[in-house]
Amino acid sequence: MTTEVTARSDNGVLTADSARRTTRHLLERVEHRLRDFLTAENEIWTAVDKRAPVPVGAVADLIDSGGKRLRPAFCVMGYLAAGGAPDAPGVVPAAAALEMLHACALIHDDVMDAAGQRRGAPTVHMKHSAEHRERGWQGEARRFGESVAILAGDLALIYSDRLMAEAPPALVPVWSELRAELIIGQYMDVASAAEFSVDPELSRWIALAKSGRYTIHRPLVVGATLAGATGLAAAFEEYGGAVGEAFQLRDDLLGAFGDPTETGKPAGLDFSQHKMTLLLGWAMQRDERVRDLVTTPGHDADELRDLLVATGVPDDVEKHIDELVQRGRAALDAAPMDQVWRDELGAMALRVAYRKT
Amino acid sequence: MTTEVTARSDNGVLTADSARRTTRHLLERVEHRLRDFLTAENEIWTAVDKRAPVPVGAVADLIDSGGKRLRPAFCVMGYLAAGGAPDAPGVVPAAAALEMLHACALIHDDVMDAAGQRRGAPTVHMKHSAEHRERGWQGEARRFGESVAILAGDLALIYSDRLMAEAPPALVPVWSELRAELIIGQYMDVASAAEFSVDPELSRWIALAKSGRYTIHRPLVVGATLAGATGLAAAFEEYGGAVGEAFQLRDDLLGAFGDPTETGKPAGLDFSQHKMTLLLGWAMQRDERVRDLVTTPGHDADELRDLLVATGVPDDVEKHIDELVQRGRAALDAAPMDQVWRDELGAMALRVAYRKT
Repeated sequence: MTTEVTARSDNGVLTADSARRTTRHLLERVEHRLRDFLTAENEIWTAVDKRAPVPVGAVADLIDSGGKRLRPAFCVMGYLAAGGAPDAPGVVPAAAALEMLHACALIHDDVMDAAGQRRGAPTVHMKHSAEHRERGWQGEARRFGESVAILAGDLALIYSDRLMAEAPPALVPVWSELRAELIIGQYMDVASAAEFSVDPELSRWIALAKSGRYTIHRPLVVGATLAGATGLAAAFEEYGGAVGEAFQLRDDLLGAFGDPTETGKPAGLDFSQHKMTLLLGWAMQRDERVRDLVTTPGHDADELRDLLVATGVPDDVEKHIDELVQRGRAALDAAPMDQVWRDELGAMALRVAYRKT
Repeated sequence: MTTEVTARSDNGVLTADSARRTTRHLLERVEHRLRDFLTAENEIWTAVDKRAPVPVGAVADLIDSGGKRLRPAFCVMGYLAAGGAPDAPGVVPAAAALEMLHACALIHDDVMDAAGQRRGAPTVHMKHSAEHRERGWQGEARRFGESVAILAGDLALIYSDRLMAEAPPALVPVWSELRAELIIGQYMDVASAAEFSVDPELSRWIALAKSGRYTIHRPLVVGATLAGATGLAAAFEEYGGAVGEAFQLRDDLLGAFGDPTETGKPAGLDFSQHKMTLLLGWAMQRDERVRDLVTTPGHDADELRDLLVATGVPDDVEKHIDELVQRGRAALDAAPMDQVWRDELGAMALRVAYRKT
């Protein structure tokens, strides 16, 4: 246990520098915890059979490939903002559990979206389908790759739970809510894409479940609960809802117009999967040519992008993101926390809303 | 809490009748717990949106469709045999958690095996693929159905964990082992089918992980741990390994020769999926025509069955099942438990090894 690092500077005053240093230090410990956990599992299963650790390796590859680590970051910041002691046990495994759960969500999501790339590398199911083909194995390559991905995602879900079991039982309710919301949110996303229904209320609910709550609000509450604080719940809910919607809108914009070399995934995937994003829903309501083009098999991605720009919706989305960031930051104004953490969480709102990847 | 029911008869003597009545009573409470849990979840999500409870419904349909409830039964019997009090909390949610985990395993397994039927009804992915086609929704029907099944399985996995969180923390280690073994065992099954490698040692390990440990040994240990007993570990491991292998061998025989109207799934599925069962592995080692026929696309199922019978392997498998049942029952001889429970577990070994479905 490191005792020198605290959220306050040497003379006991909390500064932006000391807050950031403590956050960074805890997030480094989260990385170590994830790596140590997966290394130990890999060793256990390697001793059984050379094939046995393959699903562990699939989870480890995804974790190692980086990512924004937003959920651990919000968990750690929620914890520190609520007055949690930097060297108390609990926050590191809880934050690691959130990232491990996210690994499950991404691996399964990529199967559901038939996504080929994630973080600039082949997705789990693509990698294993390719191996199946190269080796000329029995059965269908697609099914084999997807089976490996289903099992690797299941394993990540189980691992996330093992990590969370190291944190206090006070987390059980929020951990339960967070996970069920994630799955139901994913289902609603899949169902609304299939039905292709333009229902901005539904799209907002999905954005709230998948991004607002899962990525921001609940991780902040996990942190605050670990610190024993209850007075931040309303502020974290308001902040998480607003910044989460901004996060999702940025996701929509990056998915449509982002640079694949930066985002690590091909542009336009949402369209080919008929994802009913908020961006697309608004554009379809404004101009019926958008629906006609999106539902035309083999439509030209550039033509769709041009049409979207012509509707003016992307500009409106940018303005809405600005408003959401304002609203999220304002939600913290009256919250019982040090001004330093209000500033840090304000900076996180900017980072999330105006990210490039 | 029901206090009248105990594992002993009115005059305090444990009889086969009272043991069975107590087991049955606890298993009924497990059914209620599962049903109440899913009904409550269904209500919560129905209030959000009419689509939201669909994954909950998929889990509930599978649970409602019956099944042998072997894992709750072994958990409850392990608990009572180890001296657990019938009306203490813990055993009911733990046994319910085991059945909920099994729902996840079956839903995901059916996707991986491309199985169309389970317990005489369409599998989750088939049902939802069919709905997608009937409604003319966007995207690929197969992917939609499989996505619903992936999410429903994830939800069952999360629910199993919520139920297990109601039991004492002493279960964390065995619960962790059981779940990781299940996933790695499933992966090894998928991998050995793809590689189509005849390796009886590997097939036995898979049978041990998937049936011996997951279905019998670990549920018994969950029960014994809840009762606070540690002296039964070795006996339960030996019994679970032997009876679990018998269970798997019966599964292989039913899969190849069973009556689909009784098993609820089509005969020969293991062959079409190239599952390297112990039965098939032994037959391939004995007669190379078996491999040639199995790997011939569109081979005739009846021809393969006839060839298998001609190798004499099914008869040998029956003899091996007899030996395993003997070994499993003998493992309990010196175990510190009442003779009544030794007899009840002996009867379970017969039920598992000579079942028709």
